[in-house]
Amino acid sequence: MGSINIAQKLQLITEFWSPRTVAVVNDYDVRLGKVQGEFVRHKHEESDELFLALDGELTIRMDSGDVILKPGELYVVPRGVEHQPVSEHGASILLFEPSEIVNTGDAGGDLTAARIEI
Amino acid sequence: MGSINIAQKLQLITEFWSPRTVAVVNDYDVRLGKVQGEFVRHKHEESDELFLALDGELTIRMDSGDVILKPGELYVVPRGVEHQPVSEHGASILLFEPSEIVNTGDAGGDLTAARIEI
Repeated sequence: MGSINIAQKLQLITEFWSPRTVAVVNDYDVRLGKVQGEFVRHKHEESDELFLALDGELTIRMDSGDVILKPGELYVVPRGVEHQPVSEHGASILLFEPSEIVNTGDAGGDLTAARIEI
Repeated sequence: MGSINIAQKLQLITEFWSPRTVAVVNDYDVRLGKVQGEFVRHKHEESDELFLALDGELTIRMDSGDVILKPGELYVVPRGVEHQPVSEHGASILLFEPSEIVNTGDAGGDLTAARIEI
């Protein structure tokens, strides 16, 4: 396997809020996603979740306040903390989390994405 | 805790080959490092290790061939694979790996860095 180019992988992603797995580190995934608008509020009881903004701006709404991520900024949502990712104008993001984590967490619903490697 | 700005954290790093932990995801670390020259060849028997180039260029020498990472490119060195990170002109890199992983792996020696959070 060769190197993985983040920009090239992002070009393969056409759907919002459907992160794709681009690399695996033991039992953790590196996922890339494009987002726009409001995602469902949810939590992951069993795991922290890392968000890194690559372009655009991502807001993570939480009861404790909003965290705003610009490109090159990251935030780890602690396990069990309700969060709602939102991006009014759109963003590309990188996620790092255990491979079994599902994007919608405890909320489920139509926005639940399958785990797909690209 | 607020967001973490990668560029700001990199400004705090003055030593080559001494990655610093800037975020923790469960029992994994996100580490940032500045590198220049040749690191010691080593392996991690117990874990994969992700390298992402942020600026500059990083070469990962392995028996199977070199992998060259430019900014925005990443590579996962599989567990047990001997690798030697090299950067002739210098690079800034991001690492994802279990918190207990030590930079020099099985090689040990003077370049072994303590786990320090910044």
